[in-house]
Amino acid sequence: MRLRGVVARNLRRLRQAKGLSQEELADRADINRNYVGLLEREEHAATIDMLEKLSEVLEVEPAAFFARD
Amino acid sequence: MRLRGVVARNLRRLRQAKGLSQEELADRADINRNYVGLLEREEHAATIDMLEKLSEVLEVEPAAFFARD
Repeated sequence: MRLRGVVARNLRRLRQAKGLSQEELADRADINRNYVGLLEREEHAATIDMLEKLSEVLEVEPAAFFARD
Repeated sequence: MRLRGVVARNLRRLRQAKGLSQEELADRADINRNYVGLLEREEHAATIDMLEKLSEVLEVEPAAFFARD
């Protein structure tokens, strides 16, 4: 799925911009520690509930995950 | 979840703008016929794979589902 790739790339970029590891981001978002890795490897289709939690920790609008360069 | 409400409202608005019933949209997107109703009633957290399919039928960018008035 193409959108998975877009979300994966943006998630990694935004997470690294905050200086967070996958595990640190998951802990702060109160989600499973494996989940961030699954999304960044495009192995799982994120739900909007999860994107909302991640966006709050990363301090971005949820639409930022869909940004295409 | 607040983002569910945003997605629900946008999905309904974009679907009606195309003159499609929930069932017609589901059929065209090749997804379960109950799924659109579940999203519009905020009973299910959409996945990005589903939002991608719906966005293609509705001819909008996926970020359109996250638009806040």
